[in-house]
Amino acid sequence: MNYEKIGYGAGSKDFREIPNILRAFLGKTELFIPTKKIYSIEANIDDSTPQILAGYFEKAFKLGALDVSLTPIVMKKNRLATKLTVLAESGKLDSLIRSIFEETNSIGVRFFPVERRVLERKWTKISVLGEDITVKTACLEGIEVNALPEYEDCKKVAKKNKMPVKKVYSMAQAEISRRK
Amino acid sequence: MNYEKIGYGAGSKDFREIPNILRAFLGKTELFIPTKKIYSIEANIDDSTPQILAGYFEKAFKLGALDVSLTPIVMKKNRLATKLTVLAESGKLDSLIRSIFEETNSIGVRFFPVERRVLERKWTKISVLGEDITVKTACLEGIEVNALPEYEDCKKVAKKNKMPVKKVYSMAQAEISRRK
Amino acid sequence: MNYEKIGYGAGSKDFREIPNILRAFLGKTELFIPTKKIYSIEANIDDSTPQILAGYFEKAFKLGALDVSLTPIVMKKNRLATKLTVLAESGKLDSLIRSIFEETNSIGVRFFPVERRVLERKWTKISVLGEDITVKTACLEGIEVNALPEYEDCKKVAKKNKMPVKKVYSMAQAEISRRK
Amino acid sequence: MNYEKIGYGAGSKDFREIPNILRAFLGKTELFIPTKKIYSIEANIDDSTPQILAGYFEKAFKLGALDVSLTPIVMKKNRLATKLTVLAESGKLDSLIRSIFEETNSIGVRFFPVERRVLERKWTKISVLGEDITVKTACLEGIEVNALPEYEDCKKVAKKNKMPVKKVYSMAQAEISRRK
Amino acid sequence: MNYEKIGYGAGSKDFREIPNILRAFLGKTELFIPTKKIYSIEANIDDSTPQILAGYFEKAFKLGALDVSLTPIVMKKNRLATKLTVLAESGKLDSLIRSIFEETNSIGVRFFPVERRVLERKWTKISVLGEDITVKTACLEGIEVNALPEYEDCKKVAKKNKMPVKKVYSMAQAEISRRK
Amino acid sequence: MNYEKIGYGAGSKDFREIPNILRAFLGKTELFIPTKKIYSIEANIDDSTPQILAGYFEKAFKLGALDVSLTPIVMKKNRLATKLTVLAESGKLDSLIRSIFEETNSIGVRFFPVERRVLERKWTKISVLGEDITVKTACLEGIEVNALPEYEDCKKVAKKNKMPVKKVYSMAQAEISRRK
Repeated sequence: MNYEKIGYGAGSKDFREIPNILRAFLGKTELFIPTKKIYSIEANIDDSTPQILAGYFEKAFKLGALDVSLTPIVMKKNRLATKLTVLAESGKLDSLIRSIFEETNSIGVRFFPVERRVLERKWTKISVLGEDITVKTACLEGIEVNALPEYEDCKKVAKKNKMPVKKVYSMAQAEISRRK
Repeated sequence: MNYEKIGYGAGSKDFREIPNILRAFLGKTELFIPTKKIYSIEANIDDSTPQILAGYFEKAFKLGALDVSLTPIVMKKNRLATKLTVLAESGKLDSLIRSIFEETNSIGVRFFPVERRVLERKWTKISVLGEDITVKTACLEGIEVNALPEYEDCKKVAKKNKMPVKKVYSMAQAEISRRK
Repeated sequence: MNYEKIGYGAGSKDFREIPNILRAFLGKTELFIPTKKIYSIEANIDDSTPQILAGYFEKAFKLGALDVSLTPIVMKKNRLATKLTVLAESGKLDSLIRSIFEETNSIGVRFFPVERRVLERKWTKISVLGEDITVKTACLEGIEVNALPEYEDCKKVAKKNKMPVKKVYSMAQAEISRRK
Repeated sequence: MNYEKIGYGAGSKDFREIPNILRAFLGKTELFIPTKKIYSIEANIDDSTPQILAGYFEKAFKLGALDVSLTPIVMKKNRLATKLTVLAESGKLDSLIRSIFEETNSIGVRFFPVERRVLERKWTKISVLGEDITVKTACLEGIEVNALPEYEDCKKVAKKNKMPVKKVYSMAQAEISRRK
Repeated sequence: MNYEKIGYGAGSKDFREIPNILRAFLGKTELFIPTKKIYSIEANIDDSTPQILAGYFEKAFKLGALDVSLTPIVMKKNRLATKLTVLAESGKLDSLIRSIFEETNSIGVRFFPVERRVLERKWTKISVLGEDITVKTACLEGIEVNALPEYEDCKKVAKKNKMPVKKVYSMAQAEISRRK
Repeated sequence: MNYEKIGYGAGSKDFREIPNILRAFLGKTELFIPTKKIYSIEANIDDSTPQILAGYFEKAFKLGALDVSLTPIVMKKNRLATKLTVLAESGKLDSLIRSIFEETNSIGVRFFPVERRVLERKWTKISVLGEDITVKTACLEGIEVNALPEYEDCKKVAKKNKMPVKKVYSMAQAEISRRK
């Protein structure tokens, strides 16, 4: 749902315990249907080392994070610090926040809900140099918009054949294009 | 509206189709009046080239994006990747998300509503080296807080006069200050 | 509160002035209790110098900002610009937005509510080289997860003793560990 | 030439005006033959706006710069500033340094010689959707290591056919692979 | 001196202690006369906190560094680390390298000579709101290319007059332009 | 060797094949003795994906690179590109440059010699939670300036004991401090 205005009205009787102003997001439903509600968790960190923050990736993914990223930021007192961002479904929110406190030196995080649209994905196989490589095909309303070879598969084939990953990736792309 | 607490209560009868917990944002209205509701759309991308991502700017602005930016981020597996951020009004949300899927290799985006406060702007003209330069004046509650020459105009005058843009920009600033 | 679905229903009579679609965030309350509602204010700025933006930190903290940070971003026309981010409680929102307009060349900001979880903190003292150093201890559900010496205190002791701050910091860490 | 040691000896009579210590880079010539000597010019800038610095690209390329780039850096006093880097042949050094002074607010630059190895390049044409697209092929010791379609050509074909650039680029890659 | 070629010849007798290959930088002297030889010292650091690295600025400037900067970099194992760069004259090289080892966790630095061209600078005074503000004027071959008010002076005047620094800076720029 | 001036003189007879201007770096030998001569290899890349560039780390280290890093840079046409930097001894220079051409889409690199000072290192063992952890001690002129537990060892002990790496690291630091 997209909204154009935000209205404020007197809340219904049902909200006795809370003040009687309610924020309502209004809008018209569009073709676009959000399919997932997730959270973005963020922490600005200036007292952990890059080693410690990098080490947190593994932990976060193990706890179910959908995505983890680090952004360089400048904080007060000339500090070239790091913003840690973790995307997660609501059920993972608590354990992920807890893990940030346990694994980094952060003592405060912020988080907010975001809607997420993910393309439908299909996984198929192609053969490159006699080896299987997975192809991730993404469709938007039934039409393929993306078909990419999996990097890790290309890497394995590249190692086995002592070739650059770039070359195997490119051969896989050609094979995908030929297949159509 | 700024809120101080978030309350939870039993939903009214009107919400039969949905569970009966409602999140209500409470607060008092302040002087500050939000004038626009927009969306921030974000995608973390590690499989598109800088060429492709840079090329997306033109497309996004054509589709009505209010702002587009790229932020360097570190994703898993040592990838120095890019966060693409697009600001847009709700009516443009669907077509912009679609375009991200079509134009980049992203297969998942997230988005969330943000409120936007923009200063009132007035456009006037000044003359520098015999040429018109547009001045964008921004007012906060009727008081001018900003009056800046348009960069593109200064560039044109600079080219015509074979002068550094910096110099023309600086002459324009002086002219603006003189005018007051 | 974490939510799993977002439902839309017909609004109650109480919302006469606004359309009758209401966005309700649904979910189950978890152990995790959000304690603060704050705002994240953001502005993409391509026409202020680094000097001016750096100078804004002092102003923002004076006006009650909880945190201020700068992120390098790429905007249109090849500009390596800056995203200014200010975290603040709702009561400070107006004055901080106003100050961004007054102190930088920004003429538009966006903001959105975020929930914040901050660990309980206790401040104690340890003695290093005969000087007091404050230790900030952070607890998660009563269990200490962090105990860090204050950087500024270590810096003072380091100066007095003509030692590297790193060394004093490390001595303080050892003292904290011994104390337990 | 790669060197393993740096020796110092008494300079010959020919260096009367200068002290008699000479730094000699020693090493053995390798297969690898450097083909170009160029300079890297750098300036740390904290008092120019992103607009001005972005505008410098056009000027620098007009003056013969081989490459121009901007790097986000943190300078003293919390400034998220920019390092401007320009690569140029020695004959262009003076005019480029002069232009940095004229076009930006920089008042000091540093520069140093670098050796440059560039692959041999060949330009050929392929046909995609009935349009010509240039292919840049790079060879290392006679063996092709890279064959990439020109981004700008793909963009033109994409516009003409109202397709994503990504798609045309990918079609061009497939065509290159087929051609072999 | 700019060089076009690098030649290798048999070294003269004077270099007995060292192998007999000498690298000679050749070129023609140009109008441009380098006036300072300095060093760029760099260290890639992934095990110090932003606090510690930021704290190093003060130390480095006290030891005579000409410039200090931090650049975000990605090192192995997903680490969003920092490159510390210090510019210094040769006489300061040893004490600065030593201080990097003492004040940060770095255990290895690299350095290389760079030539530096700095514009001639003159300092004059202008009056803004009844206060003196220093103007730094930079000249290229006798022609003024830059005349900027000192940020710190503007800040003082701004504080005294409870005005934004931006406004005072802009008044100073107008005054400079009027003066000419 | 640090130099204060760069002199130019007529080259000796020994340089027949090359022009007769010689650049001589002059200076006085200082306490500080450079122990290693290495090269910094750099490439600005705007047509490879983050996946491909991240994948290059493994290859580069296998070929003997001393350090590899990625820096976000802005190139022409709005591209948020990447500077790849590889540090290597001269003997590895050729194979590393070759591998950049083979493994990334780069078709041009630059490189220059840098001197490197590395502290003497000693490796010892401490015991934390009954497990060995390696301590890397770095000495400057015989005096210990750094003693840090190896991150990877702490990680192993942390996993075995289901504790945060941060906690084990901190216990190791305390043990190091106790040992002295």
